[in-house]
Amino acid sequence: MTGFGVGAIIFGPMRFKFRVIVMPKRDLLDPQGRAVAGVLRDMGVRVEDVRVGKSINLIVEAESEEEAERTVDRIARDVLSNPIIEDYTVQRL
Amino acid sequence: MTGFGVGAIIFGPMRFKFRVIVMPKRDLLDPQGRAVAGVLRDMGVRVEDVRVGKSINLIVEAESEEEAERTVDRIARDVLSNPIIEDYTVQRL
Repeated sequence: MTGFGVGAIIFGPMRFKFRVIVMPKRDLLDPQGRAVAGVLRDMGVRVEDVRVGKSINLIVEAESEEEAERTVDRIARDVLSNPIIEDYTVQRL
Repeated sequence: MTGFGVGAIIFGPMRFKFRVIVMPKRDLLDPQGRAVAGVLRDMGVRVEDVRVGKSINLIVEAESEEEAERTVDRIARDVLSNPIIEDYTVQRL
């Protein structure tokens, strides 16, 4: 018997924390962002280019960091965002 | 005449880009996060602690980075989040 895989057998899958940011695509109107910009300007704050999107924090169980990153990228693309109107980025927390 | 303030007079205010992350407070239920977690588990993804919040990108005009940071902190607290049920963090982009 070699040591291969013993860590996974003893410790089980590891947990990895991520944040997925989902934003409306650059060339699309963002009515929520425009509304926020209007409120801020009425308060006297000089703002531009306000965009409102989603932030999703999650912990993924996986056998390795690479597997966790692949999983999060897949769910960000297929579940958490709508690729027609939104872009996503993944941050490791 | 000294050089003091000449930069601001010539170049005007500077622009600073930030991201504000607004998340439901740790000890509050997050129905949207629970719904997402349910969908992911049905797909066979092992996830825990899924939390859904907002991400707001904005560009602020200010005379200095410190002024921009103070402004963003203030609007994150007073406008973008509800401090009773949400926490915020500010990232410089």
